[in-house]
Amino acid sequence: MKRNIRFTLCYDGSRYHGWEKKQGQETIQGKMEAVLARMCENMQPEEIKLIAAGRTDAGVHAKGMVANCYLDTSLTPDQIKEYVNHYLPEDIAVTVAEEVDMRFHARYLARGKTYCYTCYVGKEKPVFDRKYVYVLDEEPDMEKMQRAADCLVGQHDFASFCTNAGKKKSTVRTVDTIAIRREGDYLKFIFHGDGFLYHMVRIMTGTLLAAGKGELLPEQVAEILKMKKREFAGATAPARGLCLLKIDY
Amino acid sequence: MKRNIRFTLCYDGSRYHGWEKKQGQETIQGKMEAVLARMCENMQPEEIKLIAAGRTDAGVHAKGMVANCYLDTSLTPDQIKEYVNHYLPEDIAVTVAEEVDMRFHARYLARGKTYCYTCYVGKEKPVFDRKYVYVLDEEPDMEKMQRAADCLVGQHDFASFCTNAGKKKSTVRTVDTIAIRREGDYLKFIFHGDGFLYHMVRIMTGTLLAAGKGELLPEQVAEILKMKKREFAGATAPARGLCLLKIDY
Repeated sequence: MKRNIRFTLCYDGSRYHGWEKKQGQETIQGKMEAVLARMCENMQPEEIKLIAAGRTDAGVHAKGMVANCYLDTSLTPDQIKEYVNHYLPEDIAVTVAEEVDMRFHARYLARGKTYCYTCYVGKEKPVFDRKYVYVLDEEPDMEKMQRAADCLVGQHDFASFCTNAGKKKSTVRTVDTIAIRREGDYLKFIFHGDGFLYHMVRIMTGTLLAAGKGELLPEQVAEILKMKKREFAGATAPARGLCLLKIDY
Repeated sequence: MKRNIRFTLCYDGSRYHGWEKKQGQETIQGKMEAVLARMCENMQPEEIKLIAAGRTDAGVHAKGMVANCYLDTSLTPDQIKEYVNHYLPEDIAVTVAEEVDMRFHARYLARGKTYCYTCYVGKEKPVFDRKYVYVLDEEPDMEKMQRAADCLVGQHDFASFCTNAGKKKSTVRTVDTIAIRREGDYLKFIFHGDGFLYHMVRIMTGTLLAAGKGELLPEQVAEILKMKKREFAGATAPARGLCLLKIDY
């Protein structure tokens, strides 16, 4: 009999083509499903479908991705966790495995998401965490970035902050908070919202950095939102600085 | 006219075959010398010889390696640092470049070295620092390890703690201190001594861990020293956990 197993996952996205399974490419979903298929001998590999809260792009990391899967296994959640971690590569880990109600759906029921974007502003090259930070040449103005961020907080049409916005699907999202913090040589941008469009966090970060460097006025960000055109916003900040921290249910 | 330039280097040794230049292999010395040769147009590449305080093995990291090189360049030390960091790969950095007396020799004048060996004893897989730690299955006994470490401190013939001890060269070294500290999910072994033989820090670590796991009695370590045979000591701990912290002059 199938049970609904909920996983919390941590991964270093550096060497993956993102979350979503793609034929012939290394992906987090692909790695996980292969291990689950190996574990569930009574199931056909095609039956194993991991439902994630969302998809992370190539090179993006996660500390708290959530995904669920209907599995026919007699193992306990702790045994599942142990099995999966043993067969997964070193750069992917299950931190929690638990049995949940059959109605739990990692994507449909996700109410909020927290992402952290990390920049490095130190003087020396960040040799040991080079894969997890975006190195800045100059230090951006914190106050200007916070003013720009204030324009983004709230419910808006984020069409300007999204790559390949379709014409059909809504691009309206609510960003509750954007906290910008200096921690030693690191600059952290913590975004919380009900959901984020494709590349949205990275484009918001690139736009805040542009405001911090004086390339645009903080108040222009409100106008960029109104334009609803990608080309008015800042650059897409590199994937390596982004990490999915938490999903709210 | 040649000047003697002293470099302090930081590197992630994961993808290198160690410090020492080897034909056809990626090494730290090879990378550095190639960049210096590019910088010094008036010099023949063969003239550029980087003299390091010591050689680190394949996979071993460094935060404070010191090396010097006689260079014919009109660049200031700061310009040299900037040039070299620009052309070096992301996993190697010069943290200090300075002009020193022509008599400074990074190897002959090194009086002491500090190494740190890091083990991980947490419950979850160390996804983001997996390349810098040795993951332990069980938690070793701190008190037993410290007692075993006390046997190693002092001036001893470390022939048992060395791979391929030659018959000619002395294997006597002085280890001043071995500090074993628990920091969160990490267990750190800090070794300070006048010099270390090939694999010596990793074999000492493997032996301390064996004592901590009860595979040998702490007091046996004194006898292992007397045996002067590699096979009596513990396993060579993996390279990834080792980092050269500092050289004293």
